[in-house]
Amino acid sequence: MAKSLGRHLISELYDCDEEILNDVQQIEYLMKKAAIESGATIVTSTFHRFLPHGVSGAIIVSESHLAIHTWPEYNYASLDIYTCGDSVDPWKAFYYLKDALNSKRQESQEFKRGVFSTIGIPENSLHKVEVS
Amino acid sequence: MAKSLGRHLISELYDCDEEILNDVQQIEYLMKKAAIESGATIVTSTFHRFLPHGVSGAIIVSESHLAIHTWPEYNYASLDIYTCGDSVDPWKAFYYLKDALNSKRQESQEFKRGVFSTIGIPENSLHKVEVS
Repeated sequence: MAKSLGRHLISELYDCDEEILNDVQQIEYLMKKAAIESGATIVTSTFHRFLPHGVSGAIIVSESHLAIHTWPEYNYASLDIYTCGDSVDPWKAFYYLKDALNSKRQESQEFKRGVFSTIGIPENSLHKVEVS
Repeated sequence: MAKSLGRHLISELYDCDEEILNDVQQIEYLMKKAAIESGATIVTSTFHRFLPHGVSGAIIVSESHLAIHTWPEYNYASLDIYTCGDSVDPWKAFYYLKDALNSKRQESQEFKRGVFSTIGIPENSLHKVEVS
């Protein structure tokens, strides 16, 4: 299997709880919990509530990022979970959020980002490492 | 063609300028310029420089988000440009950044996010709109 720097999970969460999707504090809390759940280390984050409805937010983690956009009026959230390194599992964040948002139906695709052979680096190259 | 809330461009930028990829202020500036270039409105952003090298950052725009992770040591950057609505063109941000980072080789895939028929909403449903 081709080695890559990152794994990127693109998820569509349908039939979610409208009230949670519209609550920026709750979404920020759940996204941060999901990041931790996956094994990631939070570096910085930004969340915004739109009017009349909807929340957008992103968390930079040492191992890449998580991002969400919600459409409460359609009970829909689009979710990105992008992680690097072997110590983090993006699916753990996905399962946590699917439950937390009460999503009844989901679609997910996982992509490799930064495939070593395509970049042109040896298979034993290092992932990005936070040292301070 | 199936209507969707968003368009998500996933791009791999290879053979980029190492120095630019490692300059957090420059990356933040170029990402913001790219967002504006695409027609998006910047809401909030966060960027971080990793040690010993690399930059990660995300910009929340009214029309969704842009995110980047750079590996200067591999001359590689992974780029996400996710836009909603008809007034924004994610490809304009892509072309701007590919040139700005001096990338000699790229791979891009465009995905639909939040397909109306899969969410279960009418084809004439509205995108998220910022009203304040």
